[in-house]
Amino acid sequence: MTPDFDAVCAAARRLEGAAVRTPLLESPLLNEAAGRRVLVKAECLQLTGSFKFRGAWSRLSALDAAQRARGVLAYSSGNHAQGVALAARRLGMRAVIVMPSDAPALKIANTRAYGAEVALYDRAGGEDREALGARLAARDGLTLVKPYDDPWVIAGQGTCGLEIAEQAHAAGVTRADVLVCCGGGGFTSGVALALEGAAPGLRARPVEPAGFDDTARSLVSGRREVNAAPSGSICDAIVTPSPGEITFPIMRRLCGPGLVVSDVQALAAMAAAFLRLKIVLEPGGAVALAAALAGGAEGEGEGGGEGEGEAVIAVASGGNVDPAVFARALG
Amino acid sequence: MTPDFDAVCAAARRLEGAAVRTPLLESPLLNEAAGRRVLVKAECLQLTGSFKFRGAWSRLSALDAAQRARGVLAYSSGNHAQGVALAARRLGMRAVIVMPSDAPALKIANTRAYGAEVALYDRAGGEDREALGARLAARDGLTLVKPYDDPWVIAGQGTCGLEIAEQAHAAGVTRADVLVCCGGGGFTSGVALALEGAAPGLRARPVEPAGFDDTARSLVSGRREVNAAPSGSICDAIVTPSPGEITFPIMRRLCGPGLVVSDVQALAAMAAAFLRLKIVLEPGGAVALAAALAGGAEGEGEGGGEGEGEAVIAVASGGNVDPAVFARALG
Repeated sequence: MTPDFDAVCAAARRLEGAAVRTPLLESPLLNEAAGRRVLVKAECLQLTGSFKFRGAWSRLSALDAAQRARGVLAYSSGNHAQGVALAARRLGMRAVIVMPSDAPALKIANTRAYGAEVALYDRAGGEDREALGARLAARDGLTLVKPYDDPWVIAGQGTCGLEIAEQAHAAGVTRADVLVCCGGGGFTSGVALALEGAAPGLRARPVEPAGFDDTARSLVSGRREVNAAPSGSICDAIVTPSPGEITFPIMRRLCGPGLVVSDVQALAAMAAAFLRLKIVLEPGGAVALAAALAGGAEGEGEGGGEGEGEAVIAVASGGNVDPAVFARALG
Repeated sequence: MTPDFDAVCAAARRLEGAAVRTPLLESPLLNEAAGRRVLVKAECLQLTGSFKFRGAWSRLSALDAAQRARGVLAYSSGNHAQGVALAARRLGMRAVIVMPSDAPALKIANTRAYGAEVALYDRAGGEDREALGARLAARDGLTLVKPYDDPWVIAGQGTCGLEIAEQAHAAGVTRADVLVCCGGGGFTSGVALALEGAAPGLRARPVEPAGFDDTARSLVSGRREVNAAPSGSICDAIVTPSPGEITFPIMRRLCGPGLVVSDVQALAAMAAAFLRLKIVLEPGGAVALAAALAGGAEGEGEGGGEGEGEAVIAVASGGNVDPAVFARALG
């Protein structure tokens, strides 16, 4: 299966009625603060609190009957886990999720609440999650659902881009940068494919946390760069070692330059989303909005509204944040 | 002008393109906790962070040219102020807002940020806001925009009910209680009028904070009861002395019994909305969800989904909350 615009459209048909069509929000006071229109795709309002449900549903709903009967396995520190867990339950399938024992407590609890079996491994102690997962999958014939480097997952996550294309057009914005919170690049590449076919005037750009800007550097060098550290950002949801084998060529062909924001900027964007948009974002889900507020995009979008500069679109990709971290952002 | 279903439909035409069509959200984990489907109309995502913008726009957009040229005046502790301020600015009108000096700091700051002139009065010290407002209005020929006891405001706020009717039908719910956060009854009566015409199987019910249940008691006694205290709830947005002269007969004719929740229940509903729906609610905007989670409605709605009991719809009416209060709800 080739991840392309047609694949995104096919995924959209499978997702119809199963996923939320999230709103594209705008706040006059946020526009004034940013000096331009900032349109925010509130994907935190998606089922399970992040865009990951789209990719999970896309992948699981395309499995054959034998695969469905055996079930699926996924590795995830959180949002992908919840997406796979709920999709599996609603499709009547078994799901086993391999999670690091130091993942946010809320994400582990939610994954179990959605009906999945959680297998914890000791990330800090160096336990090999691949070996654990491979053992479980081989024993029970489970199908591995990758978080981003999978054509069906990319296509499913790209359905968010189809909605952005329609909603931006309705808001009078036909040329702008679309900033996407980026980990392994599944979401960014999927959105880029959707925009290529549905709104050629909109250009996807990945946004990453400082110190974990593997995609931004890879887009500059032309090859898949690797981060120096495996973890250490509050933006845990989007920390990955490097862009994917499948996602990177798509991003290289379609995306504008990457953007990088600090943890402090991500927290400030969470506070802005709380104050101005009334949505809850996790740090990793707020980096695109942080970049939009920092003026980090040079789109050729249309001005208007309360903003004076060019419009920008930021995808608010997830809201699964522990209350203590959220309180820190507000403080 | 008679506040009826036709008036709500006319207001919807004036509001088209000016207000946000807010989503009707649902969370599988929230359904499980409640034991039934809980559909949440996320009106906190409306412009200015509450449903008040609908009524303000409805009223201001129906003024004649001479009234528009002179401008408007409103009394409000917050949400109505912001709604009138933004509607006036977008319609090119002057707005003067009379606010108590002890209103939440965020609401005063926002009202000014939307371009309105704020005239503060000493509520705790007993200063007469009516006299202040009358003086300002007489001097400049301003039109008073009441927060709820006005047919145009009621009709405008009722447009939210038209959306609920359509969205509930799309979600497979045709018989259910629709719980509405209730102060003076403008929102509740407007939603009730909309449902009467657009979804007769849906029944509006007012929800109030304990100690300020004037509407619930009025629906029982058949006359407009008055609260014992003028203030003293964290649900400041929906504390009014009694139901309105115009709103009460509508509620009496169309609404089911009123529901009452405690401040603690309102705070818990804010936390549930944070965790499960990723939306920000203020205490007064969370009382309907609090009642839904407390099992306080006896709708004849349809079961299904993760919930086992009958479906209920809760309107989440506003999200303008100071960070300290929000942190308290999460703690």
